[in-house]
Formats: sequence, structure tokens, C-alpha cells
Amino acid sequence: MKKIAVVLSGCGFLDGSEITEAVSLLIALHQAGAEVSCFAPNIEVPAMNHATKKPLAEKRNLLEESARIARGTIHSLDTLKVSDFDALAFPGGYGAAKNLSNWADKGAKCDVLPDVQKVILDFYRESKPIAACCIAPVLLARVLGDKNVTLTIGNDPATIAEIKKTGALHEDCPVDDYISDREGKIVTTPAYMYDDAKPHEVFKGIVGLAHELVEWA
Amino acid sequence: MKKIAVVLSGCGFLDGSEITEAVSLLIALHQAGAEVSCFAPNIEVPAMNHATKKPLAEKRNLLEESARIARGTIHSLDTLKVSDFDALAFPGGYGAAKNLSNWADKGAKCDVLPDVQKVILDFYRESKPIAACCIAPVLLARVLGDKNVTLTIGNDPATIAEIKKTGALHEDCPVDDYISDREGKIVTTPAYMYDDAKPHEVFKGIVGLAHELVEWA
Repeated sequence: MKKIAVVLSGCGFLDGSEITEAVSLLIALHQAGAEVSCFAPNIEVPAMNHATKKPLAEKRNLLEESARIARGTIHSLDTLKVSDFDALAFPGGYGAAKNLSNWADKGAKCDVLPDVQKVILDFYRESKPIAACCIAPVLLARVLGDKNVTLTIGNDPATIAEIKKTGALHEDCPVDDYISDREGKIVTTPAYMYDDAKPHEVFKGIVGLAHELVEWA
Repeated sequence: MKKIAVVLSGCGFLDGSEITEAVSLLIALHQAGAEVSCFAPNIEVPAMNHATKKPLAEKRNLLEESARIARGTIHSLDTLKVSDFDALAFPGGYGAAKNLSNWADKGAKCDVLPDVQKVILDFYRESKPIAACCIAPVLLARVLGDKNVTLTIGNDPATIAEIKKTGALHEDCPVDDYISDREGKIVTTPAYMYDDAKPHEVFKGIVGLAHELVEWA
């Protein structure tokens, strides 16, 4: 049974992991026969009101909020060891661009959380495959762009232009499909990078991505 | 296109809707060709830390937290009109037993939130089908027990005994299946009433339930 580490970044698309993407990933990885462990950084970040889409006054802890998706069984990201797993996966949501990195502010020159940078590099160097959904591929672009990995975030021109500054290559992709970089062992799917995507379309793209990831693992 | 109203009760299994169940329901209803609208009560309730499984000091608003699952497109439950929809659906999670009702404290003699009681009775009286997952069928037992509806919450003896006090009938059901009461137009699936259930098993049961609901609608 292949062991997959899933890195969450909170619980909700405006300040954490996109929930439909995260759940689709967990369902699809289990469908593909994998054993899944969830991780998140144990840090506090600003929170958003998802009904009004405006900032909340409070901060929330990413490990505690991500535990909502993982039903309580979750580990601090700083305990994730590449030797314990066969593959790594990131759902999307602004959490990838605001919590795991500051891509939302700085684009191609963003800082990536050291623990996130470390696990991406560790899995890549050991030729263990990495999956990323929605906006999360920007983490791979930032960390692995100099290796000219190929990935997708859908078809958004501004984000694609920024990704190309890292050295990463971009391929357009519809919501219900995925892009495989067989050499770099990177698989990505655009998911809710298409604002008008429907949950079952996002699910279909992530099912394809998850099966590819487990096959490579 | 059939229109389905989904009633959420927060975001997280310990103080709201079980997230995998809620997302599975949204994916499966869309797969079945339905148009889905999400609702939640606009009330504040005690919140739980899902990493430690202990109470938080704060309260959270159910409409705002449920909006995390619904990606911001959500309506207050008091605006839900039966005439606008063909069917009604409830995911599970403790939110059904602690927020939408106080079943967790009072069992068969629990109080159900007036807006929840109203929509269940409205859909039932118009012969519009109702689906419920996990612990949420207790809402149907409490409101419709005197109509001797048939439902499942899996195979937990204590909960089954309590359900039978309402007049409702119970049928055991495995996690990946569902129980249909064709006369009462009630469809239910146990989902995470089985603690050791896997996400793809929960998804399979909910896909069956959702397709049955849309077929009846």
C-alpha cells in the first residue's frame, strides 16, 4: 500500500485549503488504494469570513483548522519525513498562496515556508512524485522552477506569466483533466482556478491526478 | 434540472457538518445532474478544537462557517422555501445533533431548531424527497417519527434504541450503501456513523443516496 502525505493549509478556500479539493484528494487517494496521512503547519494566520469574503479580526491555527478536514488525525508539518512516504500532495485554496507561501503578494519572487520548501525538495530529490491542485502548483514552480518542471494552473494569463518567470513550463488544462510531467514526477490539475467550476468537475480532475500519483509512487 | 436544497450546520464534524460528507453530497448531487443551493442557520454556537477535540473558548456563526464548504454561496435557512426546490438533503456531523437539534443531549425527546422542523415538515407534506447522512437521520426521526418513516444510522445499538422511541423504523446498513423508504420518500446512509469508515466508502454511500434523491425529485 502506497503511503501518501497530504499537506493542508487551513480549512476554507479564502484562508486555507479549498475544501472540495482537499476532500476530493482524500477520497481519490483512498479509491486508488493508498494510505493517507495529513499534515499542516502549526502556525497562526489571519482568517476570512467566507460569507462576506472580508477579513475576520481573529487569527486561526492552521493545524487545528486543517484537522476539521482530516477528522482530527493530523500531524505538524515539521514532523513530515520523506523516508516515511512514497508521494506528496497539495490541494489548492488561497492557503497555498497566503499561508504556505506569500505568492499572493510577491508572485515568482515569493518566500515559501521553510518546512514546505524542504519537503518539496526532499521528495523531488528522491524521485518521489508530487501532486498539486489549483493554485498550489505555484509552490512547485517557486521551489523547482530551475529544474524546468512542467505544470498547470489552468489558463489564467497573469498567473501563467508569473509562473514562467520561475523557469517552470506551463500547459493549459481543462478543469476535469490533469497534466503529467513524467520526468519531474509532477502531476497537477487546475480545479477551482476556474471560478465557475462545478464540484464534480473538480473531483474528476483530482481523481485523475490521484490515480497518476499513486501509480508513480 | 432538479433543484436540491442542502442544509449545512457548520464546518467540521465536532461542531458542524462533517466535511467529507458535505462535499461528497455536493459532488454526487452535481454528478446526478442537480442544481444545488446551500443553506445554514444564521446563529452562533460553541466551537471545538478539532486537533485536541476539546472545546474552544469562542463561538462561531454557522452561516459563516458553512460558507467555507459552499465557497461563499450560501443562504440563511430562514429563507428556504419548499416551493423553490424539488428535494432536501442533510449531511451529518455533530452539527446535526448539537446545532440543528439538541439530540446529543436529549435524544428522542430533543428539540429541533424551528426552521429545521419547518423545512422537514414542508418537504414531507408536499411529497418532496429528503436525504440525510450519518447522524442527521435523527432529525427526520424526531420530526417524522409519528409517520413511521424508515431510516438508517448504521448499526449503533444505543442510537437505534433512541430512534425507535420516536416511532421511526430502523434498518441496519453498511457504510457504502443506503436505505430507501419509498413511501415516505426518505433516503439515508450511515457514512461516518462507522468511526473507522474511509473517505471513499462514505463517498460511495452518499453517491447512491444522491442519485436516489435526484431520481425521486
